[in-house]
Amino acid sequence: MTVINVFIFIGIIAAAISGSLVGMKKQLDLFGVICLGVATALGGGVLRDIMIGNLPPVALIQPIYFFVSLCTSLLTWLFYKKVTKLQNVIMISDAVGLGVFTAVGANAALTHHMNAPFLVVSMGVITGIGGGILRDLLAKDIPYVFRKEIYAIASIIGAMSLFITYDLVPHIISLYICLFVTFIIRVIAVKYNMNFPVFKTDMEISKDKEKGMQN
Amino acid sequence: MTVINVFIFIGIIAAAISGSLVGMKKQLDLFGVICLGVATALGGGVLRDIMIGNLPPVALIQPIYFFVSLCTSLLTWLFYKKVTKLQNVIMISDAVGLGVFTAVGANAALTHHMNAPFLVVSMGVITGIGGGILRDLLAKDIPYVFRKEIYAIASIIGAMSLFITYDLVPHIISLYICLFVTFIIRVIAVKYNMNFPVFKTDMEISKDKEKGMQN
Amino acid sequence: MTVINVFIFIGIIAAAISGSLVGMKKQLDLFGVICLGVATALGGGVLRDIMIGNLPPVALIQPIYFFVSLCTSLLTWLFYKKVTKLQNVIMISDAVGLGVFTAVGANAALTHHMNAPFLVVSMGVITGIGGGILRDLLAKDIPYVFRKEIYAIASIIGAMSLFITYDLVPHIISLYICLFVTFIIRVIAVKYNMNFPVFKTDMEISKDKEKGMQN
Repeated sequence: MTVINVFIFIGIIAAAISGSLVGMKKQLDLFGVICLGVATALGGGVLRDIMIGNLPPVALIQPIYFFVSLCTSLLTWLFYKKVTKLQNVIMISDAVGLGVFTAVGANAALTHHMNAPFLVVSMGVITGIGGGILRDLLAKDIPYVFRKEIYAIASIIGAMSLFITYDLVPHIISLYICLFVTFIIRVIAVKYNMNFPVFKTDMEISKDKEKGMQN
Repeated sequence: MTVINVFIFIGIIAAAISGSLVGMKKQLDLFGVICLGVATALGGGVLRDIMIGNLPPVALIQPIYFFVSLCTSLLTWLFYKKVTKLQNVIMISDAVGLGVFTAVGANAALTHHMNAPFLVVSMGVITGIGGGILRDLLAKDIPYVFRKEIYAIASIIGAMSLFITYDLVPHIISLYICLFVTFIIRVIAVKYNMNFPVFKTDMEISKDKEKGMQN
Repeated sequence: MTVINVFIFIGIIAAAISGSLVGMKKQLDLFGVICLGVATALGGGVLRDIMIGNLPPVALIQPIYFFVSLCTSLLTWLFYKKVTKLQNVIMISDAVGLGVFTAVGANAALTHHMNAPFLVVSMGVITGIGGGILRDLLAKDIPYVFRKEIYAIASIIGAMSLFITYDLVPHIISLYICLFVTFIIRVIAVKYNMNFPVFKTDMEISKDKEKGMQN
């Protein structure tokens, strides 16, 4: 589990950056920006550990994840302009993070002897998207994953691929398959700007016309 | 516990519809609508299981609840207009759901040997109203139960009735008493539009006058 | 632990008042105001107990905390005008609450044999500021601690002082040191209106100029 750690830290850094950027946009103070960065980076794992009863959560036992998130948030604050220029790097790292969090989360369920398919997949997805949901809750946004692009679906299919291959190949390979599948689906979805459909009632459509692009 | 299961599924379906309708009104994509439906249907039970340390939560161990919620959300999306015409059916089902969730939640505390009255009642109430609170949090609304109508109070009185009768009658009868009491109070509250008082400061009252009925 | 209980109840009352006032400002009904008061008073401890797996949470096992919060919220509702005149008392009590919640939270981790420094400090901080974060989430505000004044930092330094002194002096003295340190930092921060810096992008600065002091 040493090479996968590199991916984990890439994911944590990407998540902390995304949380920090939201915090800065919302005019939080430095402490708030750090909180939002840390919550985004660690939130998914903490949620999963609460769900499987693995308490206290790993993120509180191994402070390295916290300190990496903290430093990332600080650096994002200090080098805001440089960070925002790295949009492509951030997007790629974020997709890596989604993949590796999903893999680690699904794997955590299995190593805690919870091997029902639904549990494994949901622990993968909660770990993958939980941090982003927490970020949006704390920042008073409707969760991003509910609104834009194929994000959770990549995590779902990735977790399924881990579950299917877990007993067929060495466990670590299964984690990489999950990481790879999630990553590819996510990157393709961003590249081709693929989204789920949004429902519009007649009333809302006409209201949209009236008020133009307010919102 | 087989007839009560019918009521549980009525409650889950009603909750999933209510979550999905909020999601559609908020212009979430299909995935978001499903998430909100599922969170509303299962959120109360998951919260309760976290509180009593019954992990992983029942809703993750028995995927049937998830899949019923999922299908309900999908059908709500597909048949939006037909669903919105069923307001009375939805209201009645929602009151059934509140009652049965309260009964099952209070019962869960008792079957886990937590029989202090406060614990039993609060587990009933958390199971009953937790899903709706989660729905409103995720949809960026102030929780509905904090603002409108006798909702939680029905659940509180229902849970109390279960606690009081639990050792006097067969357990299953006690659950039905709770379901019935909660249901009746809730339906009466809706029918007569009974609400808790809202406090108005002088300032706010005058502000309300100025701006008319905005907000 | 009997004198410290006095401080705990001061903290709970201050927290319940702060939650209730937010609820009244947001035009919640009486039930909502009570919920917000209770959630603010008990939320931090419940979050901590979930994190350390101490379930069901203390706040559900010992209903006295709940009933004190409930009565406080009711009295705040009834005597709104008198309560709002006590701003200084509320501020001081709130600082006492922050201190005592931090001390009790850090102590809870240590008495559950979780003595890693990071865990102890984070349990103190979560107990100290968790209730306020929950209040703001439920009231649809961006958490106050993310935006204003040295609040969490007082809790962090307080929890550290408990951790450092825990084996050097009797435990109860260590709790009082934490309470005192947190309290002093918090009160000084309020008195001198000390805040963390807020980041402004060029765009946002010019936007601020255009729209004056809206928002």
